[in-house]
Amino acid sequence: MMKVGMLGCGVVGSGVKKILDEGKTEAGSDLQLTRILVKEIGEGMDVRFTECADDVLDDPDIDVVVECMGGIEPAGSFVEKALAGGKSVVTSNKKMLAEKAARLYALASEHDVCLLDEAACGGGIPWMANLKRIARIEPVSSFQGIFNGTTNYILSRMEMGGADFQDVLKEAQKLGYAERDPSDDIDGVDAANKVVLSCMQAFGVYMPVSAVETFGIRHIQACDFAWAKSHGLTIRLLGTGENHNHTVSAWVMPAFVKADSLYASISANDNVLVSHSETLGTSAFAAPGAGSLPTAHAVVQDLLDLYEGSGARAAVMPAAVMDQSSVKGRYYVRTVNPAVFDDVKQEDAGDALITREISLMDLCARVQKAADEKLFAGVML
Amino acid sequence: MMKVGMLGCGVVGSGVKKILDEGKTEAGSDLQLTRILVKEIGEGMDVRFTECADDVLDDPDIDVVVECMGGIEPAGSFVEKALAGGKSVVTSNKKMLAEKAARLYALASEHDVCLLDEAACGGGIPWMANLKRIARIEPVSSFQGIFNGTTNYILSRMEMGGADFQDVLKEAQKLGYAERDPSDDIDGVDAANKVVLSCMQAFGVYMPVSAVETFGIRHIQACDFAWAKSHGLTIRLLGTGENHNHTVSAWVMPAFVKADSLYASISANDNVLVSHSETLGTSAFAAPGAGSLPTAHAVVQDLLDLYEGSGARAAVMPAAVMDQSSVKGRYYVRTVNPAVFDDVKQEDAGDALITREISLMDLCARVQKAADEKLFAGVML
Ligand SMILES: NC(=O)c1ccc[n+]([C@@H]2O[C@H](COP(=O)([O-])OP(=O)(O)OC[C@H]3O[C@@H](n4cnc5c(N)ncnc54)[C@H](OP(=O)(O)O)[C@@H]3O)[C@@H](O)[C@H]2O)c1
Ligand SMILES: NC(=O)c1ccc[n+]([C@@H]2O[C@H](COP(=O)([O-])OP(=O)(O)OC[C@H]3O[C@@H](n4cnc5c(N)ncnc54)[C@H](OP(=O)(O)O)[C@@H]3O)[C@@H](O)[C@H]2O)c1
Repeated sequence: MMKVGMLGCGVVGSGVKKILDEGKTEAGSDLQLTRILVKEIGEGMDVRFTECADDVLDDPDIDVVVECMGGIEPAGSFVEKALAGGKSVVTSNKKMLAEKAARLYALASEHDVCLLDEAACGGGIPWMANLKRIARIEPVSSFQGIFNGTTNYILSRMEMGGADFQDVLKEAQKLGYAERDPSDDIDGVDAANKVVLSCMQAFGVYMPVSAVETFGIRHIQACDFAWAKSHGLTIRLLGTGENHNHTVSAWVMPAFVKADSLYASISANDNVLVSHSETLGTSAFAAPGAGSLPTAHAVVQDLLDLYEGSGARAAVMPAAVMDQSSVKGRYYVRTVNPAVFDDVKQEDAGDALITREISLMDLCARVQKAADEKLFAGVML
Repeated sequence: MMKVGMLGCGVVGSGVKKILDEGKTEAGSDLQLTRILVKEIGEGMDVRFTECADDVLDDPDIDVVVECMGGIEPAGSFVEKALAGGKSVVTSNKKMLAEKAARLYALASEHDVCLLDEAACGGGIPWMANLKRIARIEPVSSFQGIFNGTTNYILSRMEMGGADFQDVLKEAQKLGYAERDPSDDIDGVDAANKVVLSCMQAFGVYMPVSAVETFGIRHIQACDFAWAKSHGLTIRLLGTGENHNHTVSAWVMPAFVKADSLYASISANDNVLVSHSETLGTSAFAAPGAGSLPTAHAVVQDLLDLYEGSGARAAVMPAAVMDQSSVKGRYYVRTVNPAVFDDVKQEDAGDALITREISLMDLCARVQKAADEKLFAGVML
């Protein structure tokens, strides 16, 4: 029997509660959810619910704490307290973890407990598990994928037919696929957080989110899709991490991909995550990247790893040595100041231009110089 | 340290040897390949090679036997002897395992050892691992996928442009993607073997390969692709298993799928395998379905599971109660005897017809009645 306390019982938490309470398998029935932190005890909540975090964090009977409150604070401090108290932690909170990972993994390592985050990246996709599995045999050399379901929903809706970004965003908000403040999603920050977590699992190094070069889809327009379509392409928001032995590069950017490619086939709010390594080669995982039950499933998988003793102990996470200069590409740029790109322009692309192969650093410098708030950039894959 | 003996050192075996000999990780270096059975000792083979199977099977120092000889015999008898001698076995040989599974799992269970087959299905795809992982939380309700790389190569080549089946088959043979006798691949038997193995892992039941309703691509023609293309579709060979609580259905069949779907995006000799379960929902895995190193990677993953003690002990495998009557579909049929389908015909499809929704059993009965050796059938997805 393993006793589980939970912080937060919203979309993800209520899914975890359902799976643990229903206990459909022998292993599953050995996990017991004994305490649940909520902001306010409401009708129909049983005796396990509490409004006091310490009822979970200080309970000596609780072996593991699940954190699915969201937000950086107080979630981060609660997780610190749990780890310092010798409890392992399972979290779905990528924003908090990407922000505080260095400190939290050090703390977990110091107290010889685990800090697991399968649910924080790709919802139900067994992404962390498979990166860990590959690393038993060889280093992961790179990964790439569609990490954010909200933007993928928006992009695949816009692809279908000329719709405006703002209209589709509003629709996504109505359907609950996008938050009231969608900035983290549409500016690529959520994907960048997940790239940070993936770099930790895949390469064993940590970087601040600010080190991930990030381009979002806030300024995408129907004309970008029209041009893409007329060239047998579509647009997806990709996150990438590359391991160059002693250095790492990491970026998030809209990408123009072939209409019959794997990335293009991922529609609505699904995710796909792809790893590359020497003997396994290319290996891809696709599933709903979010949602109550798929995400909760991933949380419970982490709990089962802990229960079976196969959850990896946390190790102090060294800082990544970033090297973004090796990232190169042909970039699609739509801006009111195209002159900034004149000397690297290869061709026109509707209202935009496509550069010849330049470095990502060069692109970033020119984007800065263009000083165009509404500039939209993507990479040609 | 775990000592490994290997039977056969061809495409897969030489990959296993390479990975184990290079030992790129700590865990990997703890696996030691100590004996290798070959038909004939050749130049450059070191002292580990032997022409005598018993040097592997009777060696008390060997903990685990890897079987990658292929063929049903003598591979099957060698595996029996290894299990009976208390050695766990890792095999990539789907044909042998699908044929002898009932007996081999019983034997493994009797001697309390493991019989693992990750490499036998989907090459490097961590398919068995993930079915096993899902089953920790809930039953797998169904699975479907592109299980055979050879036919997928042929289909994706034919899709590209009007090529004839025979020409593409010859090309695939030249490239080493298809065997000299390609029957098992193009008649769907190889996919059916893998459906049997997947049913064992996913549903915990065994069935003979003959119980899997199997339609191949031997009689596919350029006209089938032409019709598909003009309707925004393409053709892929799918294997499927469905768990209806106490009964199971299983079939292999060409399927007409949307050109922008996940299945359509899988080209060349890649595989994609998709599982469905209650809380995880739909989860898809894509990777090269064969090849020396990806397949060898899967063999070594099984070895690492054994080494870490997380390889599942074999259990006696009960026979599946088959129920094919619940499988229904709209079927594409091209035959010289279309009259047999007159009363269930919904529409014409070029040189073929499409039925209204009928049961797979009904289709099979009519195919028998049509007595047309060159009949081609597929399901509309
Ligand atoms: N939703 C998904 O599909 C998904 C997928 C992957 C990862 N995640 C991540 O999982 C986390 C949770 O997401 P969610 O969608 O479940 O969010 P949610 O529905 O807003 O649930 C969070 C819950 O935690 C409660 N909470 C917040 N602060 C609290 C506090 N100080 N004390 C007690 N309760 C508190 C909230 O209460 P109030 O409602 O009263 O504020 C809410 O019920 C986030 O980090 C998110 O990024 C979500
Ligand atoms: N190739 C793939 O990508 C792949 C992927 C997944 C699964 N598999 C499966 O893995 C198995 C091996 O495939 P493979 O491609 O590696 O075949 P392969 O290249 O033909 O290798 C088999 C090796 O075993 C040897 N062998 C056969 N019978 C033997 C015996 N009685 N004693 C000693 N050695 C014997 C063969 O020797 P000779 O050459 O002298 O006959 C050959 O070297 C098959 O079951 C296959 O279906 C293959």
